[in-house]
Amino acid sequence: MKKIKYLKCSKCGAVVSEEVMYNCPHCGTSGTLDVIYDMELIKNELTKEYLKENKNTNIWRYLPILPLEGLTGAAPLQIGMSPLYKSSRLEKLLNIKNIYVKDEGRNPTASFKDRASAVGIAKAIELKKNVICAASTGNAASSVSGFAACMGIENYIFVPETIPEGKLAQLLVFGSKVILVDGDYDTAFDFCLKAVEHFGWYNRSCAINPYLVEGKKTAAFEICEQLDFKVPDKVIMSVGDGCSIAGVWKGFKEFYDLGLIDKLPVMVSVQAEGSNPVNRAFRNNKFEFDYIAPKTIADSISVGIPRNGYKALNALNESKGIAVDVSDEEILNAMTVLARHTGVFGEPAGVTGFAGLMKLAGEGAIGPDESVAFIVSGSGLKDVKSAQMAVLKPDKVKPQLDLLIKYFEENK
Amino acid sequence: MKKIKYLKCSKCGAVVSEEVMYNCPHCGTSGTLDVIYDMELIKNELTKEYLKENKNTNIWRYLPILPLEGLTGAAPLQIGMSPLYKSSRLEKLLNIKNIYVKDEGRNPTASFKDRASAVGIAKAIELKKNVICAASTGNAASSVSGFAACMGIENYIFVPETIPEGKLAQLLVFGSKVILVDGDYDTAFDFCLKAVEHFGWYNRSCAINPYLVEGKKTAAFEICEQLDFKVPDKVIMSVGDGCSIAGVWKGFKEFYDLGLIDKLPVMVSVQAEGSNPVNRAFRNNKFEFDYIAPKTIADSISVGIPRNGYKALNALNESKGIAVDVSDEEILNAMTVLARHTGVFGEPAGVTGFAGLMKLAGEGAIGPDESVAFIVSGSGLKDVKSAQMAVLKPDKVKPQLDLLIKYFEENK
Repeated sequence: MKKIKYLKCSKCGAVVSEEVMYNCPHCGTSGTLDVIYDMELIKNELTKEYLKENKNTNIWRYLPILPLEGLTGAAPLQIGMSPLYKSSRLEKLLNIKNIYVKDEGRNPTASFKDRASAVGIAKAIELKKNVICAASTGNAASSVSGFAACMGIENYIFVPETIPEGKLAQLLVFGSKVILVDGDYDTAFDFCLKAVEHFGWYNRSCAINPYLVEGKKTAAFEICEQLDFKVPDKVIMSVGDGCSIAGVWKGFKEFYDLGLIDKLPVMVSVQAEGSNPVNRAFRNNKFEFDYIAPKTIADSISVGIPRNGYKALNALNESKGIAVDVSDEEILNAMTVLARHTGVFGEPAGVTGFAGLMKLAGEGAIGPDESVAFIVSGSGLKDVKSAQMAVLKPDKVKPQLDLLIKYFEENK
Repeated sequence: MKKIKYLKCSKCGAVVSEEVMYNCPHCGTSGTLDVIYDMELIKNELTKEYLKENKNTNIWRYLPILPLEGLTGAAPLQIGMSPLYKSSRLEKLLNIKNIYVKDEGRNPTASFKDRASAVGIAKAIELKKNVICAASTGNAASSVSGFAACMGIENYIFVPETIPEGKLAQLLVFGSKVILVDGDYDTAFDFCLKAVEHFGWYNRSCAINPYLVEGKKTAAFEICEQLDFKVPDKVIMSVGDGCSIAGVWKGFKEFYDLGLIDKLPVMVSVQAEGSNPVNRAFRNNKFEFDYIAPKTIADSISVGIPRNGYKALNALNESKGIAVDVSDEEILNAMTVLARHTGVFGEPAGVTGFAGLMKLAGEGAIGPDESVAFIVSGSGLKDVKSAQMAVLKPDKVKPQLDLLIKYFEENK
């Protein structure tokens, strides 16, 4: 493809031809590849004027810098251009001048993963692949499932048995062939790899397929456009495998390289205390990951081996980033604080970034004059069981006014 | 308010002053009021040019014909301008030339009700009301809850004990004061009325408050704009209380009266067989409702007494409408057919309209050259339990390739 120069390994830095479909030939599975574009070529097309005139209000407006020849495989779903809210109520609460919330729960299947799946499905169609597959803790699965359904593409989804009910129901309603793996996410992931090899399917996993992250970077492009190209000082993300923070960072870098923005944000990686391999490596200044069995309520970022960990570390190192760990209790508290101040209801992993912001704000690590943006990566409706843990179920009241008055008095 | 001429009773036709806050003084609870605008006045402002120039991509772009003085109480959430998809896969399946799907699950709290709540909360703030309340089967509740949270308004929500878990969790996460009523929706509704009278709260129920439906009509405005002012032949809606179909019909009528469109659609009311009071009345050419205890999986439209039934009947009579009843089985089937052809996952009530379209198409009641639009009124993630009834849970597979191959062979 003319606009793509080459692929580059996030681990060893090797330059790899576009013909390589998945990982770095030297590093194997752990060497996920970045797509490197010919910026001089793209610069001519992707200008502020181009964006201003573009009537597409979805991720396809960024086609000049997406790894697709055209829009043949672009699903007719409204994907991306999710709202970015400035929240005066949060600004007051946390004493920070500018706080922006990007609600990714507003995507077609209610998560950030839709951006990646949209590109993945489009790429599969462009490559004339008839069967697509993915391993996922849930959101990537329901997302590829929804997009495949919309485009009529056969698909196999490998999920760990711990997948929340809402996410599993989505997959089944969309008609995916679901393989409920007896094991955790890591097991499901490895099992999917084996199956891909055997059956020759197209693999949608962000941890394998270099083109998926390309969808995720569009969130950064949108933040730039939505803030009239004024980049926030800090961009805060929930981190699991590492491809979301890597994707968003890549987006900012590309807009910077295109001369569309004049500064880069500091990337903040927020992980759950019980699943923090990226943050551990970053803090210890290491470029490798040690495995600890993950344990967190935030299923979407519950990861023992970060499959895109090198990309995430690169993002943190390049942006002089910050790593914050939060407890499950802080995550559940963040869920209600966010909902009660903004009307945005996120799932546990979705609000983990905000939990990190609350922690940093509490420690005074973010100045009152700063501007910060955080991404809510998935809707709270995806994992109602966890939401129920954040709140108390109300008592039943008989429909009599005197009993209600009494009930209010007792529950002040 | 200068742009409002008067309110008009949907039951007896009486003209009522704008000072009347809730129902018709003659008819009581059953006489819900319509807001009648000064069209000659509005015509000067609300033109195609005005709409073209308007940068607001939410319902507030229609302010000239909303019952608000200004946008003081407008929540900073992206409400409305939900996607309208043309689905070639459904068109092929049902042999109809133009099928449009409007996905209201993409609203802030994932349902059509957000349009009404946005206007309701804005109106409450404009009227300087500090406490708002609602009775709801779930979606109106979570919607008013989310908007109230965003604006920091105290709110009380009366829900029947049968409310699906996802909807209840939303309310609690948003911090509403939830009254879980020992009884069904009708009981919760009446109980809420009594409480309003006692406590003096502002009542957000569409069945009481004439301003709520005004939010719902914006979906019709959007359909007009999204189709470049070419109105579909038929607009198909799931119907419970009746205010959604009434609201959407009112929207088309108003755009017609403003000269923005040159024809009106036929309105199609789809109800669940076990909860069809509006359709029964319409078919029997009656202007009254008989109570049968409702029984349907589609909780959002499970209604014994249609609280906006007269408005709904007026919509059907005026538009020479069609009434279709569908079984719960047809609703669940419609859920998977819709999801597997469009990528849109609706809750049972959300896909009831589509179930009606499938039925009409099957009976040849819609010609191949017609254009039809239907509204998916809420996200399937709101009621996962029902979705689970539409699908089979997959078996667990041990992570061994040979077992997977065997599993595929056994489950062809």
